[in-house]
Amino acid sequence: MNKSKKVKPTNFSSKSTGRNNSKNGYKNLKLASYPDPLLLWGRHAVTAALENPLRRIYEVFFTESNQDKIHALIKQGSFELENGNTKFHVVPSKELAALLPENSVHQGIVAIVKPLEPEKLDYLINEMRENRTSFVVVLDQVTDPHNLGAVIRSAAAFSADAIIVHDRSTPRLDGVLGKAASGALENISIIRIKNIARAIEQLKKNGFWCLGLSDSALNDLSNMQIPTKTALVLGAEGMGLRRLTRDTCDELARLPTSSNFPTLNISNAASISFYEIRRQWPFLE
Amino acid sequence: MNKSKKVKPTNFSSKSTGRNNSKNGYKNLKLASYPDPLLLWGRHAVTAALENPLRRIYEVFFTESNQDKIHALIKQGSFELENGNTKFHVVPSKELAALLPENSVHQGIVAIVKPLEPEKLDYLINEMRENRTSFVVVLDQVTDPHNLGAVIRSAAAFSADAIIVHDRSTPRLDGVLGKAASGALENISIIRIKNIARAIEQLKKNGFWCLGLSDSALNDLSNMQIPTKTALVLGAEGMGLRRLTRDTCDELARLPTSSNFPTLNISNAASISFYEIRRQWPFLE
Repeated sequence: MNKSKKVKPTNFSSKSTGRNNSKNGYKNLKLASYPDPLLLWGRHAVTAALENPLRRIYEVFFTESNQDKIHALIKQGSFELENGNTKFHVVPSKELAALLPENSVHQGIVAIVKPLEPEKLDYLINEMRENRTSFVVVLDQVTDPHNLGAVIRSAAAFSADAIIVHDRSTPRLDGVLGKAASGALENISIIRIKNIARAIEQLKKNGFWCLGLSDSALNDLSNMQIPTKTALVLGAEGMGLRRLTRDTCDELARLPTSSNFPTLNISNAASISFYEIRRQWPFLE
Repeated sequence: MNKSKKVKPTNFSSKSTGRNNSKNGYKNLKLASYPDPLLLWGRHAVTAALENPLRRIYEVFFTESNQDKIHALIKQGSFELENGNTKFHVVPSKELAALLPENSVHQGIVAIVKPLEPEKLDYLINEMRENRTSFVVVLDQVTDPHNLGAVIRSAAAFSADAIIVHDRSTPRLDGVLGKAASGALENISIIRIKNIARAIEQLKKNGFWCLGLSDSALNDLSNMQIPTKTALVLGAEGMGLRRLTRDTCDELARLPTSSNFPTLNISNAASISFYEIRRQWPFLE
């Protein structure tokens, strides 16, 4: 074990964490001046980050009850230490809560991390070229962090190859979103693009069948035969797909919900569609 | 149109809404002393309540932009006015927000309502006796209001006949739960019982096949033939089904998730199961 990987639990001190960085929306957390820091909290979100060799970790704050778990993860040594300088702080649960937005479910563990290197659409398409099956998710302006986190979690659980999101309307990949994703941020590529319709066109040119989910579609997803190379396109809750996005899809489908009460939460509609796609294909890990 | 049903928008006055009723958890809302009042907010949650003839409405607070919608609902006259004394208040959006817990997405409309008359398990079983198909949901300690609301919404969307919950561990059917349910509280019976295992036994005796969802089950739900009279039993996220609940089920099933990242949010796992059940049966409204 590298010397620099030893935990040296220090008592939490507001002095040690630097200036108030309110532009990130975490008014109470005095983030050190890392370049573009993200904040993750919750057991699954943080331990998955620590287990991801591609994730750079700046600082970890944890309660005494999480000390053994943190020690074990460091021994395992899969995560990249910031020049061997990752800082670890043992802090009381109440102080941890005071660092975060009200009612954040931190489960005694918080980390300041670097964003993952973003993947490119060209790279994904190239990687999938020889694959007999591929399933990617395209999100047209799903902006609610809680919903988006839950969609990312379900996409990872049903082995989607990537999630393509609209860069400008997609929230930061941390905080509430990271908590809802429950570690999935470390398990699936998220590709940020400028123009959703153009990305769909590019996927189509490269052999993907593009299926849009829409309440007003005539086809019921459960009666459709889904090709083994598919991009599933989902819109924002309430709004649905934008016209151009809808028109660019090869086909539209709806879920077989009751006519009396037809609408589902977007994360539930998403997870049902992911399940249906995986149900129809031989399941691949 | 009954005279008492006319809207008389009054300016909001804290005096008119009575004493601070902090025992309901809404510290900022001075609830009038109604017996066991519930608080609903959000467009779908409140308009569905106003459209439900079985729901008694005490007070409605709304922004000017929602005035036409409220007038239309009153004209439609489906909701029961509290002795003709339902109070309506037009209030600025900021004042509305100040009445509610921080970050509540009220969409300009809030209502104080009476709980619906609870249904009994015996009554449900009796009602379903002659039905060829019936599908009920049993929740074993799903306590998170946001998740529970989303499960209720999906159960209504896939036409479940009722939801059976554990009385003591189930949160109040209002607030965040009501917002997440998006009006479904008015569309599906929720039966509160004292003992989940005993309820499952009673359902089994009355012809229901009881299927528990469990990560550790051997059977994959997507490969099972589901009988047309089924009770689907779901446990709390993380914890899963309690031992006694699990042992009381006829069979257990898991969802076909990736072995690398197997877990789903409970509301997503629930909605996928509801979808699979409805997919296998001729769809009934």
